[in-house]
Parts: sequence; C-alpha cells; structure tokens
Amino acid sequence: MTSVLAGATMSLDGYIADASHGGFEYLFQWYGSGDVETPTANPDMTMRTSAASARHLREHTERTGALVVGRRLFDMTGGWGGRHPMDVPVVVVTHSVPDGWPRESDSFVFVTDGIESAVDRAKALAGSKDVGVNGGTIAAQVLRAGLLDEVHVDLVPVLLGDGIPLFAELADAPVQLEGPTRVVEGVGVTHLAYRVRRAG
Amino acid sequence: MTSVLAGATMSLDGYIADASHGGFEYLFQWYGSGDVETPTANPDMTMRTSAASARHLREHTERTGALVVGRRLFDMTGGWGGRHPMDVPVVVVTHSVPDGWPRESDSFVFVTDGIESAVDRAKALAGSKDVGVNGGTIAAQVLRAGLLDEVHVDLVPVLLGDGIPLFAELADAPVQLEGPTRVVEGVGVTHLAYRVRRAG
Repeated sequence: MTSVLAGATMSLDGYIADASHGGFEYLFQWYGSGDVETPTANPDMTMRTSAASARHLREHTERTGALVVGRRLFDMTGGWGGRHPMDVPVVVVTHSVPDGWPRESDSFVFVTDGIESAVDRAKALAGSKDVGVNGGTIAAQVLRAGLLDEVHVDLVPVLLGDGIPLFAELADAPVQLEGPTRVVEGVGVTHLAYRVRRAG
Repeated sequence: MTSVLAGATMSLDGYIADASHGGFEYLFQWYGSGDVETPTANPDMTMRTSAASARHLREHTERTGALVVGRRLFDMTGGWGGRHPMDVPVVVVTHSVPDGWPRESDSFVFVTDGIESAVDRAKALAGSKDVGVNGGTIAAQVLRAGLLDEVHVDLVPVLLGDGIPLFAELADAPVQLEGPTRVVEGVGVTHLAYRVRRAG
C-alpha cells in the first residue's frame, strides 16, 4: 500500500532552510560526511555518506515512486535540470504551468487544482511505491488534508535560529506523532521516522 | 571537570513550550510512558518511564550538581515548592531578589549581576559535577557567552507549531554542534546529546 511521507533534512531547532531561505551549506554537510557513494540521477551529484546513511538513502530511494513538491522549490532548482535526482516523476503544486514546460511529461506533472489532486496524481504515478512530500508549506497542506502517513526527518546538529519550518503555517497544532519508528545514526545526521496519527 | 549543559524536553519542531507557554501535557507525556519509577525530591512527583529513559534520567541526575534557571521559570513553578525536584541548588538569574526569599539558601541563590556570574556561581556549587542550564533565553545567553559545553534534548513526537525555542533569541546563528554523542530511545521520547564547538 502506498504511504505518503513528508521528509526533509532539518536543523535541531526545526528549520529546513534558514531565514534567507539558505543555510543549505550547514544542512547538507552530511551528504559529504563519509566515503560510501550513493549515485543520483544527476551525474554531477553523488552523495558520500556513512554506510548507515547510504543504506538509509538507498532504502528510501527504492521505496519512493513519486514526489509532490511546491512551485518555489521547482523554480529554485530550475526543475533539477530536467529530472529529479531521485529519478522519479515529480508532481508540482502550482497556480499555473511555468513557461517552457509541458503540463505533463515523464519527469514533471503540473497540478493547478490543489493539494488533494496533486497527492492523488502522485499516488497513481507511484504505483505500489510511496509518495514523498516536500517539507514546508506543502507538507503542512498534506498534513492538514489528512493525507499524511509518515514524517521522515534527517536531523542535523546545527541551530539556524530562524527559517522555514518542516511544517510551515501549521494549522491545527498541536499534532501528535507516533514513534520514532526508526532511528538510524549517521555521521552529522540522525535519521528519524514517525507515524502520523490519523483521525477516525 | 564541570561541564555546562543546556537541556530540555523539546517538540520535533523545536519548541520547549507552546505559544501560550504551555503545551506541557504533550511535551511531558514521556514522564508517564512506562512502568519504571524514578523518584524525585518532590514526593508528589514520581516519573514512570521506559527502562531506557529511567537509566538516562538517573545518570543525568547523578551528573548534575547545580542548575541555572531564569526568573520566569522560578516564578512559574513557585520555586518548586522550596526545593527543585532534582534535589540540587538552583541559581536563579534575576533583576531582583523575589519577595519572601533570602538572597541565598541551600536551595536557591539569586544572582542579579548577569549570566556569567550565575554560571560561575553554579560551577562552584556543583563541585566536580555538571551544571544544568534551563532552555529558552537562559540557554541562549550561556551559549552566546561561550560558556556552554553540551546540549541535551529529549525529543518528543509532537508538533507545537509555535512557542518558546530551545535557544530563544539566538544570536550568532548558525551554530554548529557535534554529534549526537549519545542517542537513547525511550518510549515517546528520544534522548539526544550534542557537544558545542567552542571557539578558540
């Protein structure tokens, strides 16, 4: 059965990017904190992590069949050069299809009618695999819609002080999770997984 | 050698209390999440946790020789009824000695000349043991003064959405930590310890 999981690399104080929407040089140090290589669909991007993180990344990649991301991230990465590093189709939640991109391709589907439609579409694309949801406002929207099953956090030992939270503009707080169902100790990162308590 | 450690129970999104300065019913569920009893100096307060958390609590208590807390927490708890549950002397950082309390007793010392003086005083009281520092603005002040050695987080699977951060009004961010040097999996809580990178 397809699970929907929100995942992000997060600072110890709860931010997935700093107040100026950066901080990535601190958050993603663990992508180069070891010597076990994990290739991505982007030939210029190979992760070199601890063995524990590499195993975790491989399992996560194997489980993931599609992603749901916001337009901001799509723009910021320039559409990942045409294909997401995880080599899966990406559903982009947006108000309008960006210039120069078809509404649908093998790599990107632009959904303009809301978060539930985007998650439905991603589930169909993922088949028996899982749907990964981008942190920030998208994660909060999916949580609020009652569609989120798991939260995966790569917890990094840095304090950013301010920034974009894992669930931005979180409504209906407090939200209780269950777990961690999984704890993997990497180098410069702790991988944690939680289950969302689903109402009714 | 005496270490100075900031410690707190923290939500997954980085808060030690919610926006109305409460949320404790979610944060401190783990104090009753198991059946191994840990007594405190307060006869009405016995923790019942998993065996792993009980061991962690006992070690933490044995290591701690004095505490530094802010006036807000002192007032909120009514001076813990006269003695802190950890049964150690508490240095209260304040602008003025509260009515009805002597400036110094075995249980409380009120320090009115700043954070460095408070930490010095707590170190003297702690002897060979460690000094625990309250989360929030006090932790941030101690960090900023370059006096913090460790950060201990009891990470709880709840999203509070807003509130008092572990390091409130954090200056000089980003701050990189090392570790976790310790990961203990309890029930409804993950105990994490980090080292502060000291400049110079």
